[in-house]
Amino acid sequence: MIPLLVSAALAADPCLACHEERTPAVIAPWKASAHRGAGVTCAVCHGDSPDANHAADRIRVSAAVCGKCHADQARQHAASRHGIGFRAGQGCTRNLPRTPVLLSQCTSCHESDSAEPRTRAECARFLGQSAEMQRQGCTACHKVEERCDTCHLPHSTDLGVARDPAICSTCHMGPDHPQWEMWQTSKHGVLHERLGPAVAPDCARCHMPGGTHDVSTGISMGLSGQPLPEDVRKKQRDAMIDVCDDCHTAAFATRELADGDAVQKQSKALVDRAAAVIEALDRDGLLLPAPGDRPPHPLSGHRLELGSQMVYQDLSGPEALFFRMKKFDYVIAYKGVFHQNPDYAHWYGNAPLKLDLSEIESEARLLRAMARLEERVELIAGRAFPAEGQGLRGELRALQERYLRGELDAPAYEAEKKRILDEAGL
Amino acid sequence: MIPLLVSAALAADPCLACHEERTPAVIAPWKASAHRGAGVTCAVCHGDSPDANHAADRIRVSAAVCGKCHADQARQHAASRHGIGFRAGQGCTRNLPRTPVLLSQCTSCHESDSAEPRTRAECARFLGQSAEMQRQGCTACHKVEERCDTCHLPHSTDLGVARDPAICSTCHMGPDHPQWEMWQTSKHGVLHERLGPAVAPDCARCHMPGGTHDVSTGISMGLSGQPLPEDVRKKQRDAMIDVCDDCHTAAFATRELADGDAVQKQSKALVDRAAAVIEALDRDGLLLPAPGDRPPHPLSGHRLELGSQMVYQDLSGPEALFFRMKKFDYVIAYKGVFHQNPDYAHWYGNAPLKLDLSEIESEARLLRAMARLEERVELIAGRAFPAEGQGLRGELRALQERYLRGELDAPAYEAEKKRILDEAGL
Amino acid sequence: MIPLLVSAALAADPCLACHEERTPAVIAPWKASAHRGAGVTCAVCHGDSPDANHAADRIRVSAAVCGKCHADQARQHAASRHGIGFRAGQGCTRNLPRTPVLLSQCTSCHESDSAEPRTRAECARFLGQSAEMQRQGCTACHKVEERCDTCHLPHSTDLGVARDPAICSTCHMGPDHPQWEMWQTSKHGVLHERLGPAVAPDCARCHMPGGTHDVSTGISMGLSGQPLPEDVRKKQRDAMIDVCDDCHTAAFATRELADGDAVQKQSKALVDRAAAVIEALDRDGLLLPAPGDRPPHPLSGHRLELGSQMVYQDLSGPEALFFRMKKFDYVIAYKGVFHQNPDYAHWYGNAPLKLDLSEIESEARLLRAMARLEERVELIAGRAFPAEGQGLRGELRALQERYLRGELDAPAYEAEKKRILDEAGL
Repeated sequence: MIPLLVSAALAADPCLACHEERTPAVIAPWKASAHRGAGVTCAVCHGDSPDANHAADRIRVSAAVCGKCHADQARQHAASRHGIGFRAGQGCTRNLPRTPVLLSQCTSCHESDSAEPRTRAECARFLGQSAEMQRQGCTACHKVEERCDTCHLPHSTDLGVARDPAICSTCHMGPDHPQWEMWQTSKHGVLHERLGPAVAPDCARCHMPGGTHDVSTGISMGLSGQPLPEDVRKKQRDAMIDVCDDCHTAAFATRELADGDAVQKQSKALVDRAAAVIEALDRDGLLLPAPGDRPPHPLSGHRLELGSQMVYQDLSGPEALFFRMKKFDYVIAYKGVFHQNPDYAHWYGNAPLKLDLSEIESEARLLRAMARLEERVELIAGRAFPAEGQGLRGELRALQERYLRGELDAPAYEAEKKRILDEAGL
Repeated sequence: MIPLLVSAALAADPCLACHEERTPAVIAPWKASAHRGAGVTCAVCHGDSPDANHAADRIRVSAAVCGKCHADQARQHAASRHGIGFRAGQGCTRNLPRTPVLLSQCTSCHESDSAEPRTRAECARFLGQSAEMQRQGCTACHKVEERCDTCHLPHSTDLGVARDPAICSTCHMGPDHPQWEMWQTSKHGVLHERLGPAVAPDCARCHMPGGTHDVSTGISMGLSGQPLPEDVRKKQRDAMIDVCDDCHTAAFATRELADGDAVQKQSKALVDRAAAVIEALDRDGLLLPAPGDRPPHPLSGHRLELGSQMVYQDLSGPEALFFRMKKFDYVIAYKGVFHQNPDYAHWYGNAPLKLDLSEIESEARLLRAMARLEERVELIAGRAFPAEGQGLRGELRALQERYLRGELDAPAYEAEKKRILDEAGL
Repeated sequence: MIPLLVSAALAADPCLACHEERTPAVIAPWKASAHRGAGVTCAVCHGDSPDANHAADRIRVSAAVCGKCHADQARQHAASRHGIGFRAGQGCTRNLPRTPVLLSQCTSCHESDSAEPRTRAECARFLGQSAEMQRQGCTACHKVEERCDTCHLPHSTDLGVARDPAICSTCHMGPDHPQWEMWQTSKHGVLHERLGPAVAPDCARCHMPGGTHDVSTGISMGLSGQPLPEDVRKKQRDAMIDVCDDCHTAAFATRELADGDAVQKQSKALVDRAAAVIEALDRDGLLLPAPGDRPPHPLSGHRLELGSQMVYQDLSGPEALFFRMKKFDYVIAYKGVFHQNPDYAHWYGNAPLKLDLSEIESEARLLRAMARLEERVELIAGRAFPAEGQGLRGELRALQERYLRGELDAPAYEAEKKRILDEAGL
């Protein structure tokens, strides 16, 4: 079934001879792939310079290369959250047509309604990292913008892996956004495991309906819950209910999703209360250490930073608590509702969120009690150890000094001394 | 195989015509179910008013409806922990015959040996929640009393899902009781995954032996480890060993379970120590904020509440730690032993439990040191800033006041002044 | 296919008659096993005393018994980390030939280059536990030295279970070393689940290549990241790259593993900073409670212990934080890189690690501010409440006392009084 032309191309492929023996795990899936049948040889993706490839430590193929043949998917991917310019620390590299959804998300980095960056369009957490952790902890996921093989197998055209919700888990897991864990132990996930995607929805069914590569489908709020323009929000909400109503009544789906909206707002209000407590501590100079006494924040310098550019190092105790509250527990509380997992919504989300707030407020009360006590001791110390010239003894000593320095004669000294003592009622 | 009568009923089913097209995911499993063969049409469970159903946002079938045909299972379910009246926030709605096991558990809400509620038979955590979180975080699980489809598929009679331990995970997971996670990574769970339920036990094998719907089987202590009457305890323990000894010696099983008992008691003792530390802080007015300075507890008002009605909001720092200690780490430590998972027993349970206690005790020491310091400063301030009439200067000033107000003449003033100075040795 | 001799032995097996009925779950897999065909009857492993076995609460077969037939595997196992003498609380029982790798790890317990134990070759955490938790939380895993059935099924010779990475999870999971969780949600784990061990590596592929029972293969640092001798390190690193390059370029594998090395060192430096903060607090007597005010550490007594023998009970707040930092978050950060899981490396490891350090440093600042305040109050109290003989009034009173006691006559008293007042400038 392989056309002669392709067959000849394969015969001439300079890589196969060695790589079939050296890296069979790479060659075997390619040989079984549709790519082979279509004449997509090694050089089509990797270029025709074996020397350059052999010298590199990573032989990577960018999304742009895939997009030459898979134009629709590449365009959808680029227009989705997966395509947003979040290549950590490298600023916004996105240069493809955007949808209103994405423009509204630009406010994470940019001033609203402006191309001006809010600070610099960089990630402070990335900038605060070692090169090794940048590679292993940041870019390992945040390369999705420019790569297709974060989800697809690089050498196989079997779509089973890309459609398997488990492949999403390699990024969408963990304390900052455990979508995988939430879904896996939800009714949806349990039924999917047992009865398959025809019965229960998985990541792609809800967020890539119809096979679109716009993974933002059905998401009706910004990256950290911030509001989207109403027309965008409505469009995405309708798209999601359209998926839900394959099995549920639209009325049920509507209320479930509205519950998610409400929990997001309620949870955000708790985060805002905690932020206000910390901002007040900062204003009163009560953070230990104060922002001015730390290594500067990569973007905000010596200002308190509790926003989307908040880092996790060189913080005071209440801020460290706040980071966990905002970045972990807040997100889990509302995403837990949207992913239909009561244990995440409540026990991993809502309960820790409220405990966090209690701990921050209690710590703030302690710091304020401490500050009041310090101030009171300062006041007492001013009486107990009056500086020269302060207090009765100080006044008498200062007077004596002036007399001894010849500034006053004896009668003037005695008169002044009497006045001071009289004034003191002694 | 379908009797003519049934067949006619089906033909006349008014729902099918639309719903086969509109909600095929609901109709398909029903068509393949034993229910269909038995003539259990839509109306049998959902009622015969399409208008009422269409108007509702949730089309739910209660356990009472299922119980009309499945009487034994409904009775066992109602008599088990799953049937206990824990419909969060709605009080005890249970009105079915109870077993001694359940009566003993009533003390969670009721005064012991009495039908009088301990406070109000409600859940303070539920009452402290928004309506949305009540639905999504509480009732989503605590509806099991009155519903069969928390475990069973609603439209299929395939029992595979209800027997799959994964379905239990949708409630029995997370920081407050990770039975699913414990079992899944125990030897039992790993062998079950690979070799199936014939080789390794799952949730139902131990807690629903012989297919009973009394899920309390084999559980020998109350909901938070509280003791059950000895006859009940022994009966449940024997039932569990009866399961264990399919594979293990009874002597081995007995000791393993006794280890669980011991770890529960030891862990509870640590929780009690922490509670005593916090109660002492409360007595001495050292909690920040004090119970009197917070929004009132939904049931206990301005009293300190560390019991089964403890909430997770508006707490002092030590209480927030205590909540995590008692509700999460304590439970994990002993349930980890019973579910044969050393990592949960030790590293998710015992170690954090002891770290929690250290942190609570250390925080209490800090608060006490702070209080001592405040008291000392108060004492010093009394000397440094004597009120009028106190201290030498105060005495002299008070004397002067009397003289100026005409209460003393000049000689009396001078004589009194001399006396005061002489008395002071000056 | 069973030789006559074996067949006769089986016929004579005294256990089968009862146990086929009493414990079919034990007998069935044995009957299907290669052991049965080879004439390995119950008595071969369990001994020929039914009475002794029936009296025991655990019928366990040691690795030494298995080693009689499986000598190579037993030797490799004993020489690996699995064979190291970590039987908790029982000291180093290892008496088999060691490899340099293991000798270098001996420094966990022993003085370096010496057989002398560093303290006592025991685990302080084990010693600090109840007998029940020792069994359930420690020995349940740390029996691997002397047992083959932690990985192998006891009565089946099916190797599928022992080769299943899930069997490793029963010990290698949880907050102290979640290798299972890391791998399972890494690309490797996800592809393994879907496409099998031929496509993606599992525990054994990397750490038991070629089927060796030396599970230390490919591990290039000590148990807590400590350096190994360079020749050992290089040998193990080369062994690992040899596995990686089945699919990846050696250059890529080399850099990925070097990233792991770097992240381990960077993370350790943060742990060391935190340790220095706590050691300084201890030197200045600021830990609450101080090591001297606690129940003694099982090995280190009343000295601060932050090393490999650190315990999790009876600690001050900063130490409790430090335990979580070192034993949990530090380990996760670098093992996350080696197991190719960005979420573990970054969000479960690096970010909490840095938050921990901030919290410890902030707590230290609070304790120091408190100590300074206490010192200042002490100083003020010395002035506000002068002991007799201190301060002006004290001096005058002391003088008066001497006069009243007859040590001075009236003129001497008046003269001295004048001198004191003149000296004070009054």
